[in-house]
Amino acid sequence: MYKKRIIIDGLQYCRWDREYFQVLKDSGITAVHATMVYHENARETLTRFAEWNLRFEQNADLIMPIHSMADVATAKRVGKVGIYFGAQNCSPIEDEIGLIEVMRQQGLLIMQLTYNNQSLLATGCYEQHDSGITRFGKQAIEEMNRVGMVIDMSHSAERSTLEAIDLSSRPICISHANPNFAHHALRNKSNDVIKALTARGGLIGFSLYPFHLPNGSQCSLEDFCQMVGKTADLVGVEHLGIGSDLCLNQPQQVLQWMRNGRWSKTMDYGEGSATNAAWPDALPWFCGSAGMENIYNGLIRSGFSESETGKILGENWFNFLEAGLAPTSNKVVHSAWKQPA
Amino acid sequence: MYKKRIIIDGLQYCRWDREYFQVLKDSGITAVHATMVYHENARETLTRFAEWNLRFEQNADLIMPIHSMADVATAKRVGKVGIYFGAQNCSPIEDEIGLIEVMRQQGLLIMQLTYNNQSLLATGCYEQHDSGITRFGKQAIEEMNRVGMVIDMSHSAERSTLEAIDLSSRPICISHANPNFAHHALRNKSNDVIKALTARGGLIGFSLYPFHLPNGSQCSLEDFCQMVGKTADLVGVEHLGIGSDLCLNQPQQVLQWMRNGRWSKTMDYGEGSATNAAWPDALPWFCGSAGMENIYNGLIRSGFSESETGKILGENWFNFLEAGLAPTSNKVVHSAWKQPA
Repeated sequence: MYKKRIIIDGLQYCRWDREYFQVLKDSGITAVHATMVYHENARETLTRFAEWNLRFEQNADLIMPIHSMADVATAKRVGKVGIYFGAQNCSPIEDEIGLIEVMRQQGLLIMQLTYNNQSLLATGCYEQHDSGITRFGKQAIEEMNRVGMVIDMSHSAERSTLEAIDLSSRPICISHANPNFAHHALRNKSNDVIKALTARGGLIGFSLYPFHLPNGSQCSLEDFCQMVGKTADLVGVEHLGIGSDLCLNQPQQVLQWMRNGRWSKTMDYGEGSATNAAWPDALPWFCGSAGMENIYNGLIRSGFSESETGKILGENWFNFLEAGLAPTSNKVVHSAWKQPA
Repeated sequence: MYKKRIIIDGLQYCRWDREYFQVLKDSGITAVHATMVYHENARETLTRFAEWNLRFEQNADLIMPIHSMADVATAKRVGKVGIYFGAQNCSPIEDEIGLIEVMRQQGLLIMQLTYNNQSLLATGCYEQHDSGITRFGKQAIEEMNRVGMVIDMSHSAERSTLEAIDLSSRPICISHANPNFAHHALRNKSNDVIKALTARGGLIGFSLYPFHLPNGSQCSLEDFCQMVGKTADLVGVEHLGIGSDLCLNQPQQVLQWMRNGRWSKTMDYGEGSATNAAWPDALPWFCGSAGMENIYNGLIRSGFSESETGKILGENWFNFLEAGLAPTSNKVVHSAWKQPA
């Protein structure tokens, strides 16, 4: 049954080469949210888009770009892996409200308001003081709602997250994080946040990044499924997805860029430490093409029905994104440019 | 009959405010090619797009964005003026081949390879020596062909223009210029260029900018129509359009930006001179909402049939752009984001 389902991984940042696209295709994943930006400004983000365009051109037999959930249905039908884009930071819009629509038009479907640090929009989860959504942040939320760019608070602090949930007229997401009750971490979320998020129609994607899991890289599939089960007991299955945060085959240099960007003169270790500075060891049950299917089978063994499991593995993301990506008004409808393959 | 036709002005750079959008609507024009860029780099071009998005949002009852000729048909049906975008320079792509697809995705449908000066791609019409299409230029032409971005050589020098016509696998345009036989100017085109362009399916749009016309601002409608007639005798009516180069209500500052950009420390006067530095006086028969209809009637009086006149006033542009904007391959078709109105 797994093969027939729409399977969506709500966040990855792997080394995007042909070899990995083949792994993705073999995995049965229908669509992946690929992080495009950690600290890139507007101009640099254009180069990231250009790099992806070349990947689509050169690997058109394996992958295709996703601009709407209709494209995901197409990807499923033609047997390709759909890729859609998000930024883990608001750096692509710099200080310019109008760049939200520009980036949305370019294909940036999701944007975090912060990445660990204070941003122009909100406070990140590593700051000592969380001052909530800023003046610019309030306008940015309204504009993201208007153009149908999904708000993601995965790396944001608690107050900012609760305010964003409240200020946004549309449901928002936490694409990749786990509940604090399973493993306490600055990046994981309180029950208050998870309840507020889901009560407003929002979605949380469970992370497979070892730093977010109980027992780190030793976390078993059973432990993971137990965490999902407890969360479902708390808020139901309709608001749960997977956002694996999988970062396969990336060099240490990329980890340093994610953690330090251009803002730090001294090495910041993020969720690691000076003595544990490298990528965490991958989970043996989630590092190859069988990862999502392992979770599928694990959830069923742990007591979820097939229907519930299908929702958690992709259908919930599909429905959430289908609603979230529609513009608030479409009185003006323009036709698509058809990307050459 | 004028009112029933698709009327396209193949280039304008007016002061784009609500008052002028009302003039455009009253004029019966279906679609206008609006210049977005003279010297702006990639980042600055994003701000130009953001400014236009705001205009579309605030004037959705009058104008709509055009991404394909299907949108022009929609504009005609719903009684709005369609706006499509081009750059008069290759500055938006800087030195990066991948930005051609990025800008095309954003809605830049047409791009000149040069604006008067030597560019990274080709030689402009004001340079003393024309070295033809550059190494980067050859790759850019191929990429523009691939993604369906129309090549425009209005401000390019002769050799570069002939080479572009030859190198491009798809017809190109000279969106706004006149034949040298009507008025000799660095910006106007030789019979050789016009014949080579049209023999390959290209299109030339007649300019209404006084510096491009016999007798400048005193050029009569009859003189203009005679020029069109002689060109039709030379290459037929299928390859002719209007590209008025209308720059209404713009301050002197804008003219200086067009002429000097950031490249000149001393004032460059373009087609003017130190003693004639300002905008030329507008043609009395082409400065308000009746301009295109005046030309329509003038062409019929000068002996063109209604069918021929309809082609010159818009249908030729429509057919040329419909073919030119299609990507070379559309094996991958993604759905459009629907711009909020």
